[in-house]
Amino acid sequence: MTHLEKLDHHFKEKRDEHLEQLKGFLRIPSISSLSEHKKDMQVAAEWLMDSCKTAGLENLSIDETDGHPVIYGDWLHAEGKPTILVYGHYDVQPVDPLNLWVSGPFEPEVRDNKLFARGASDDKGQVFMHVKAVEALMQETGSLPVNVKFIIEGEEEIGSPHLEKYIEANKEKLAADVIVISDTGMQGPGQPAVCYGLRGLTGVQIDVQGPKGDLHSGLYGGGVQNPIHALAEILASFRDQEGTITVDGFYDNVRPLSDEEREAYKALGFNEEALKEEVGVTELFGEKGFTHFERTWARPTLEVNGVFGGFSGEGIKTVLPAEAGAKITCRLVPDQDPDEIVKKLKAHIEKHKPVGVTVTVSEFDKGKPFITPFDHPAIQAAGRSYEKVYNVPTAYTRGGGSIPIVAAFDEILGLPVVLMGFGLDTENFHAPNEHFHLENFDQGLRVIGDYYYEIAGFTKDELKK
Amino acid sequence: MTHLEKLDHHFKEKRDEHLEQLKGFLRIPSISSLSEHKKDMQVAAEWLMDSCKTAGLENLSIDETDGHPVIYGDWLHAEGKPTILVYGHYDVQPVDPLNLWVSGPFEPEVRDNKLFARGASDDKGQVFMHVKAVEALMQETGSLPVNVKFIIEGEEEIGSPHLEKYIEANKEKLAADVIVISDTGMQGPGQPAVCYGLRGLTGVQIDVQGPKGDLHSGLYGGGVQNPIHALAEILASFRDQEGTITVDGFYDNVRPLSDEEREAYKALGFNEEALKEEVGVTELFGEKGFTHFERTWARPTLEVNGVFGGFSGEGIKTVLPAEAGAKITCRLVPDQDPDEIVKKLKAHIEKHKPVGVTVTVSEFDKGKPFITPFDHPAIQAAGRSYEKVYNVPTAYTRGGGSIPIVAAFDEILGLPVVLMGFGLDTENFHAPNEHFHLENFDQGLRVIGDYYYEIAGFTKDELKK
Repeated sequence: MTHLEKLDHHFKEKRDEHLEQLKGFLRIPSISSLSEHKKDMQVAAEWLMDSCKTAGLENLSIDETDGHPVIYGDWLHAEGKPTILVYGHYDVQPVDPLNLWVSGPFEPEVRDNKLFARGASDDKGQVFMHVKAVEALMQETGSLPVNVKFIIEGEEEIGSPHLEKYIEANKEKLAADVIVISDTGMQGPGQPAVCYGLRGLTGVQIDVQGPKGDLHSGLYGGGVQNPIHALAEILASFRDQEGTITVDGFYDNVRPLSDEEREAYKALGFNEEALKEEVGVTELFGEKGFTHFERTWARPTLEVNGVFGGFSGEGIKTVLPAEAGAKITCRLVPDQDPDEIVKKLKAHIEKHKPVGVTVTVSEFDKGKPFITPFDHPAIQAAGRSYEKVYNVPTAYTRGGGSIPIVAAFDEILGLPVVLMGFGLDTENFHAPNEHFHLENFDQGLRVIGDYYYEIAGFTKDELKK
Repeated sequence: MTHLEKLDHHFKEKRDEHLEQLKGFLRIPSISSLSEHKKDMQVAAEWLMDSCKTAGLENLSIDETDGHPVIYGDWLHAEGKPTILVYGHYDVQPVDPLNLWVSGPFEPEVRDNKLFARGASDDKGQVFMHVKAVEALMQETGSLPVNVKFIIEGEEEIGSPHLEKYIEANKEKLAADVIVISDTGMQGPGQPAVCYGLRGLTGVQIDVQGPKGDLHSGLYGGGVQNPIHALAEILASFRDQEGTITVDGFYDNVRPLSDEEREAYKALGFNEEALKEEVGVTELFGEKGFTHFERTWARPTLEVNGVFGGFSGEGIKTVLPAEAGAKITCRLVPDQDPDEIVKKLKAHIEKHKPVGVTVTVSEFDKGKPFITPFDHPAIQAAGRSYEKVYNVPTAYTRGGGSIPIVAAFDEILGLPVVLMGFGLDTENFHAPNEHFHLENFDQGLRVIGDYYYEIAGFTKDELKK
């Protein structure tokens, strides 16, 4: 039997048992943001540690942090072989509004081959798959083809406030050759995807101060600068009418898309009509010269997230307001540096500041972009594992969003990161009726198992980033 | 004795008596906006009617409207002479916050030759002066040199919702040759002003709709139009960097300032430093090529009164918002038409609408601008009356604000309107510790009395607008 046949046999045999076990994990309301669930966090951590132990992982520990604990475990007996570091999280989002759930968020239920529960897809279900993949190989072959380390945290849904410190403090313990994370989605039903890059984030708030108090627009209007108008001029100055950002040097360090990447995105067959329908617009808009996937995955943005100033109630108030403000964030791509971009934004604002107002710029938290090169063997290997199980070409994608902790892994440990997700965008992460398509649970178990063999085929040197 | 000597003698003699009477009027809490003062409105109306009767006015009536009543009275025995229609109001603003008043709002008190009470200046004190001017002339000369009609309303502070209908319905009864209103301010202490124009008002709300719901700026940012950014582009497009409004045809019907007007404004000696200090800005800003008085009195404006969209709480929310909006008002000058301007605004917005969003424009109430020509005899006569009493050159001004009911008088009755105010900007209209400088009470009585003689010197034809 090939290893894939073994995995197939094993997972078929244990299907019901695994599902019942996962339901048990999902019944624990491990909501990291609510203090009344602090005890449940501990229960979930212990459940997971027991599960890792059963699977055959060793050196298990529940490592305390200043927040919820991190679970660590490893299996390091594949001498000379590469080491895979698996990251995931056992905490979940809150469940409000409760009345919109068809079955209780912590009462897992299978309907139409979908498992409904909070955390089913994000991320307990996917973490559980990694544990079971290890267990299957241990039971079927008595060992693993690679070394593995697991690090499962309990604070992903609240922004991983203590994980970076933990990684810094445990650099040796976490040393590996590739990081695998299953916490993202596939490209669509039946369409597996390997995500090899994420955008970074930076942002500023612009506060425009005009007169010291609101003025009567009749008595002063026309003679004193209007802060909203001044702000609008600044905001409008950030880009041209074709969607190109006009901040000096904004695109300087943007890594150009390779021909291979552009081809890979094109091959995904973007459905413009479906997207317009989904978001409810009559036309799409973005940087000229780029496709939608390129715009949202590989090009930086400057987005106004909020604007405020003056009177916003019903009807009319003829005020020349004292102040106005806007919140702006930029999604960044490799190799843009968040600090550099903020400097450029500030210079732009200074240059475009209208007369008669004072403009203050304050900074938000920043996150770096991350990319594992498209042609890195660990990325291409993941694609092959998917293809063997799903029997369709794998999509190679980047994510438009930002997962700061991924960039931290990339930066602190200096490893290639492979995002192998099994969720689907339609599975209501963070919303009522979260669910997980069980066909991806079934196939994903096989993909993960196969990936161990794929990675085992490389030397450590070949996997260097 | 000249008529001015007679007035002088009369008002000196009666000073204490008049002040006590005015205090009696001010003690009535005639707050038009609060239903619990409905009875006080009636008491104030009756007090005023009695006072008019004592003065010698005839045909007195308390005319019911759908709101608070209008008081009418006249004296029409100056055959062949012009008729002055005097307009004022007996209602007052609310008094909150009460704890900031040094003496009670309805407990009139003289301190430092200022009379403190709600309505002292706006407008009971000034209405009272007109009544006493009639009384003085009747007592000292047995008649008036002109015909007069009084119309004193009780809803000015709530926007005169029923007066226009009343004027329409009583066009014959209110027919006159000139309208005099004392409900505005002087140019400064010791500096009388005749206001011969007010700006009109029109406005629109711009609502920009992007996607049907807020989108994740990571997943969609860069690929879908941002409604705030689109709105900012529209707002910024309304004017150039020198403060000129760029809406096609916006200035088409603006009546140019005459050389005489520009000279008159220049003679007022604008104090730029004082204004900057007052409003708290480091530099003024307005349409290039015009002085501050010209900008705020005789040039139209386009002011953003409010803007809203997306996230405005503390910190960051990486949203690509579904919608954004702004409220805009234009102050209009003769001979701009509010409806025409709204059409032009709509055409401008349509032309500058960015792709990927839907823009809706809704209209606010409109008010026409008004002007009595600077060189109209009724205007110049008012200036002479001030000069005889104050012994300084009168300022000829326009108001940057809008008093829609003035435009209604102008439009329905087709008469020159003369705004002869005796208040000062520093007298806390609508605020705690409203007061009236008694030197302007004293001098104003003489100015009003003299003005009757000035108007008596013209034929009805000469006063035609």
